Amino acid sequence: MDLLDETIQAIVPVDLNLEPAVRAHLDQLTKPPKSLGRLEDMAAQYCLAANTTTPKMGKRRIFTFAGDHGVAAEGVSAYPAAVTPQMVRNMLAGGAAVNVLARHVAAEVRVIDIGVNDPLAEAPGLIQRKIKSGTANIAQGPALSLNEAVQAIEVGIELAQAAAQDGVTLIGTGEMGIANTTPSSAVFAALLPCPVEVITGRGTGIDDPTLTHKIKIIQQSLEVNRARLTDPLNVLAALGGLEIAGICGICLGAAAARIPVVVDGFISSAGALVACRLSPAVRDYLFFSHLSDEAGHRTFCTLFGVKPLFDLQLRLGEGTGAALAMSLIEAAVKIYNEMATFASAGVSDKE
Amino acid sequence: MDLLDETIQAIVPVDLNLEPAVRAHLDQLTKPPKSLGRLEDMAAQYCLAANTTTPKMGKRRIFTFAGDHGVAAEGVSAYPAAVTPQMVRNMLAGGAAVNVLARHVAAEVRVIDIGVNDPLAEAPGLIQRKIKSGTANIAQGPALSLNEAVQAIEVGIELAQAAAQDGVTLIGTGEMGIANTTPSSAVFAALLPCPVEVITGRGTGIDDPTLTHKIKIIQQSLEVNRARLTDPLNVLAALGGLEIAGICGICLGAAAARIPVVVDGFISSAGALVACRLSPAVRDYLFFSHLSDEAGHRTFCTLFGVKPLFDLQLRLGEGTGAALAMSLIEAAVKIYNEMATFASAGVSDKE
Repeated sequence: MDLLDETIQAIVPVDLNLEPAVRAHLDQLTKPPKSLGRLEDMAAQYCLAANTTTPKMGKRRIFTFAGDHGVAAEGVSAYPAAVTPQMVRNMLAGGAAVNVLARHVAAEVRVIDIGVNDPLAEAPGLIQRKIKSGTANIAQGPALSLNEAVQAIEVGIELAQAAAQDGVTLIGTGEMGIANTTPSSAVFAALLPCPVEVITGRGTGIDDPTLTHKIKIIQQSLEVNRARLTDPLNVLAALGGLEIAGICGICLGAAAARIPVVVDGFISSAGALVACRLSPAVRDYLFFSHLSDEAGHRTFCTLFGVKPLFDLQLRLGEGTGAALAMSLIEAAVKIYNEMATFASAGVSDKE
Repeated sequence: MDLLDETIQAIVPVDLNLEPAVRAHLDQLTKPPKSLGRLEDMAAQYCLAANTTTPKMGKRRIFTFAGDHGVAAEGVSAYPAAVTPQMVRNMLAGGAAVNVLARHVAAEVRVIDIGVNDPLAEAPGLIQRKIKSGTANIAQGPALSLNEAVQAIEVGIELAQAAAQDGVTLIGTGEMGIANTTPSSAVFAALLPCPVEVITGRGTGIDDPTLTHKIKIIQQSLEVNRARLTDPLNVLAALGGLEIAGICGICLGAAAARIPVVVDGFISSAGALVACRLSPAVRDYLFFSHLSDEAGHRTFCTLFGVKPLFDLQLRLGEGTGAALAMSLIEAAVKIYNEMATFASAGVSDKE
């Protein structure tokens, strides 16, 4: 049996029998019941995901997968594809937004070349797991073979397993890949499913004519690959990106290891969606960090039943929203662990 | 001239001439323009408030004012008034939610007795600035004399001035006072103005009959004090609480010292509103942290034109939402200061 199948079989839904004890503890803390709102829900979800009523917060790690996309040749992005390896080097040097925000929340950043169309030689710190030098153009055929898609997912699974070994207790997802909102929208359209127009946005900031063109290209990609869109894995292979596959693997591997995952924005949600379609119990382990300003993300959140933690109109990716959300989740766990109870503090309860 | 007048005269609007340089710097950072959304707006507002294009983040301090309310005798809260001094001691011991969240974001908490109906003897760490032992019952007459209200505002001003001396660069507001959503709703109704029903909520969690009673008590308070509601200061004296006055003073004193202020939730917004009515330029220095789950807060935000940074359905007060927002504001300043530029990182700009 291969790693992907093993991992899917190892994933179990969280044990809801733990929830009453967790909620009872939260209600003993010196505050009106439920008055910390979603922070309390986050603490409860963290406990259930980690399968404990005494949660600990260990290391936090953000995985930022970089990959290129054949479909970039169709002119669907505002930036040239050369930016993907340039931004990888910027991340390795600590100068990208995700580095700044990860440092702010005391999270590590791991940058993975899972499919950049550049050798990226002499790139200290880079995790080299290149499956191929970018996907094929989805407007003309499948992005990846099924085998390549599985390999890319397994990269994510292995990284999640290694994180578990390292004492990581909260994982974040992130990505960098010029044009990668295009395959993400295609994957959403096929899997949710939904019309292309409601799930396609401006990415890094394209103008109106380019947006119209991008929608047409995605519709064409769905048409060209129609016969291949038979199940989530084949959808990922036909329409996806290598970084989307890596994020899917992170979600699967983390869920199997009972490590909660903070999903970043639009592209990360596409990877998370594939993971949830492969194993619905994965959903229990996912925190959706923010509502992306990428137009289609609201459609995804509505159709998938997700209420992100915040909306700061971010549309950068990389793991930036995940980093900020990690701090909120840590805050929630600290509330659970560090607040006094009515009894311990000698505070009168409700009349 | 007294301290309040001096302070109001010292407050100037931010210099909008700084904004183009601030925005130009943000647009040089390695990300699509504006792709960090409200984080970029927060960085810009911080720069303008601090009157600099090279912002520094120094110490962060949350002021949590505690006071009691004569109107608690009308049965408008779910908790007994004895909880106010009990929670003050809990905060001094570090066991309250605001302590946990302030530690999480590396902010100091200062707890001020500005009007608790308890001697609070032997309370190490407490800042003793009691104006009186709780307000009078607003349903029967004015909460405070005009002189008492001014004194309470000046406590806040002095604390903001001392914070400036101590190198504090970001101030948060907070409060603790059983029944204090009642005077807050009354102040909002008088100053926004708006009908009592749309600005009154369940506070710590009252049931339907108590909510109906609370609305009636607030309407009665407005009626009884009608002749006194001639200007913001008299509204505060007639209907407000001592902690609301202290928060008003913090906003004024911080704006005069060009220190940005993070406003917590419902009660803090009432204090901030009074400050803005006394000096409209105060608004430039305020970050409204979160949309409170207290029903009336949405009304305030709509009528006052405020878009809070996040909505985690918090309704605890104390400064809990302000603490979480401080971390976001610090993140924004770090983005401004620490990200690489397109030029420095050798990344290609938009095509």
